[in-house]
Amino acid sequence: MSVLFTNVTALLMDGDFTTLKHGYVSTAGTDIAYVGSEKPEGPFDRVIDCTGKVMMPGFVNAHTHVPMTLMRGYGGGHDLQTWLHRYIFPAEAKLDDRAVAAGTALGLAEMIASGVTCIADMYAHTDAIAREVLNSGISANLSCGGVYFGAPEDFSPDTCSDCKNQAHITELWHGEGNGQLLVDASIHAEYTSCVPLWEWMADFARTHGQRMHVHVSETRSEHEECLARHGMTPIRVLDRCGVWDNGGIAAHCVYTDGEDWAIMSEKDVFAVHNPYSNLKLGSGIAPIPAMAKAGVGICLGTDGMSSHNSADLFADMKLAAALHCGAACDPTAMSARQVLEMATVNGGKALGRKTGAILPGYAADLILVDFEAPNLVPCHDIAENLVYAAHGSNVVMNMARGKVIYENGTFLTLDLDRIRHEVRTYALPLIF
Amino acid sequence: MSVLFTNVTALLMDGDFTTLKHGYVSTAGTDIAYVGSEKPEGPFDRVIDCTGKVMMPGFVNAHTHVPMTLMRGYGGGHDLQTWLHRYIFPAEAKLDDRAVAAGTALGLAEMIASGVTCIADMYAHTDAIAREVLNSGISANLSCGGVYFGAPEDFSPDTCSDCKNQAHITELWHGEGNGQLLVDASIHAEYTSCVPLWEWMADFARTHGQRMHVHVSETRSEHEECLARHGMTPIRVLDRCGVWDNGGIAAHCVYTDGEDWAIMSEKDVFAVHNPYSNLKLGSGIAPIPAMAKAGVGICLGTDGMSSHNSADLFADMKLAAALHCGAACDPTAMSARQVLEMATVNGGKALGRKTGAILPGYAADLILVDFEAPNLVPCHDIAENLVYAAHGSNVVMNMARGKVIYENGTFLTLDLDRIRHEVRTYALPLIF
Repeated sequence: MSVLFTNVTALLMDGDFTTLKHGYVSTAGTDIAYVGSEKPEGPFDRVIDCTGKVMMPGFVNAHTHVPMTLMRGYGGGHDLQTWLHRYIFPAEAKLDDRAVAAGTALGLAEMIASGVTCIADMYAHTDAIAREVLNSGISANLSCGGVYFGAPEDFSPDTCSDCKNQAHITELWHGEGNGQLLVDASIHAEYTSCVPLWEWMADFARTHGQRMHVHVSETRSEHEECLARHGMTPIRVLDRCGVWDNGGIAAHCVYTDGEDWAIMSEKDVFAVHNPYSNLKLGSGIAPIPAMAKAGVGICLGTDGMSSHNSADLFADMKLAAALHCGAACDPTAMSARQVLEMATVNGGKALGRKTGAILPGYAADLILVDFEAPNLVPCHDIAENLVYAAHGSNVVMNMARGKVIYENGTFLTLDLDRIRHEVRTYALPLIF
Repeated sequence: MSVLFTNVTALLMDGDFTTLKHGYVSTAGTDIAYVGSEKPEGPFDRVIDCTGKVMMPGFVNAHTHVPMTLMRGYGGGHDLQTWLHRYIFPAEAKLDDRAVAAGTALGLAEMIASGVTCIADMYAHTDAIAREVLNSGISANLSCGGVYFGAPEDFSPDTCSDCKNQAHITELWHGEGNGQLLVDASIHAEYTSCVPLWEWMADFARTHGQRMHVHVSETRSEHEECLARHGMTPIRVLDRCGVWDNGGIAAHCVYTDGEDWAIMSEKDVFAVHNPYSNLKLGSGIAPIPAMAKAGVGICLGTDGMSSHNSADLFADMKLAAALHCGAACDPTAMSARQVLEMATVNGGKALGRKTGAILPGYAADLILVDFEAPNLVPCHDIAENLVYAAHGSNVVMNMARGKVIYENGTFLTLDLDRIRHEVRTYALPLIF
């Protein structure tokens, strides 16, 4: 499949914030073949006129738990412990693969309609998730979030179910779909496991060339309890076990400090900023401008739909841009362009993928945004409009890995009626 | 015109958070006639089946400068003084009535499409704004934001252009359209005028039965300079001049204190929370939960599109709900239901109107939200979905004063092509 986009206005996200105008972008197979102002030689299977639209890279949602879409808004407004123990955990305990598949498909539909082309997901039932992602057409780094609640001295990889699962999902899905799926090594969090699991997972990551996905310093109590337990922060105690040796993503990082940031910067560990989840759950405001200044790569995530309650990264871009300006009482504390990098090219780097930029050789993960919509008129600055004025429903086309998977409100890989039916007749009755 | 809505699921916003299910709502003329579970006697001019939708009151955008839609994103990312003096003020100086009309119509289109049925606007060129609002079908409290930069001893209402304008717009528009338009008395802010204007405007408000609309304590410097000048806060110095005697709306209130709140509560002065504008401009985070506890009525606004850059109050609801939970590290600091009250019934009270609740005798200002959209499935809690998961594009019908003005993406009172044409061929070339 090859596609030629004509009359292209595009934010290339090439590191220089180049805006291509009156240009051409072509794809060949899963990748971008050409970006420039000369019309490339054909033939092409399809030509798409981009007049009135703005092209940008598809979003990388760098931290999510997509099956939790089933729990959208469930138990909202309660304190964290009540929310988790009375609402979320009991519902999750009843999930099976079919319910997870339905919830995954529903979440992917919302993401695709609002411009996501790649995710980093952490959840159980990875086989069911993997199949839905493959079918949807977007890319994913999948992980299972390893936990181990036993005594450290009793740990054995031969009996640890999450170690066995890590091996299982790696064998089944790592690299599947010609790289559409990758499996990350993963530790759920410092407080839900212990040194021997961390060392085993670090070794597994090195052996299998996997990056790492961990929840880090999301809440003050989690951070301070780690300091009390280990005499060091989650970033540092995990680093001591080699967890960051292959780089990866540390989700949340609300309470990380300067010493953590030095390690993250050195070890290619990206912080995933999940601003809505952090605010809604009362976790706090991550020190993103300071982290960025310290050289930490920042990417953007929605977290699970249970603590957001949406998967529209436009909302997170807007919040990430405004929040830090407001918190610092400085309208220059965070720019629209910085936030666009977080949501696209930084996410690609964090996941070890060539996505998030419109450059030859990168994945053809591209979206078109309707700049004729009343909420995007006029346009004095494309980045300001995309970050502050656009929302997911302005996405009129989503191309993932060279294939158009959503166009003008229609899903081309997903059956929305079937998904809603599965959610309502199977998943919800099962778990609630 | 009379309309019967059947199969209604509605958040009534009646003070008890009642959810009507399998119900009926009917309208007669501009008002709601019936709300309940029995089918009312007809005949009706039209019947609208609400299956799969949720009805709620239309939003009250309680503080905006709608013509500034022309400046969406213009000069974004600069510090406040650069933004104002290099970008906004020079553009505003070139505006004429025709450009203001185009910008107003564009802003109204975006608001109507995202569920707004009533606004409180403050801007110059009020005649042009009034005509566009009347045509659009929504209701508005209009105000001109009086300024006076001369020496106090030189003040005379006979030579003060904003006093003359207040009298002019009151005569022309106050009560026009059978109450569709009201004119508020208005002072732009403490720092752009002085005691004799405040006293004149307070007297004018009392004489003409108008409420008051003022920018109050938006930035720290504005607040502290007032303290230095007058030895008291903006709320208090204005109160001493009788400005709040008829109640009204105080926009922003980021730096107000407990003593201010006691006055506001006593004098029926509502605070308008404009969370995105306050964050984006680096103004800070208004102490909304504390103000609400102190008995101050809180409503919600977008402020001008130049500092937001959108008019979608769903985004402000989500931010208002999450922001204060995050700032307080307490997920119960602000509930979805509180925020819905801010965006609807509180706005109605603040503007002195019977709107924002679905009750007989209230204005038939009603919207339908598509709860079959993937981002609103499943629905465990209507309020959680509306505040945290919905966005403006989920609005499939907007009825203002008993008339359907927007339905399934089509504007019934506005000509979007004509508006875009006027904006692009006339307004933008004139001012930029």
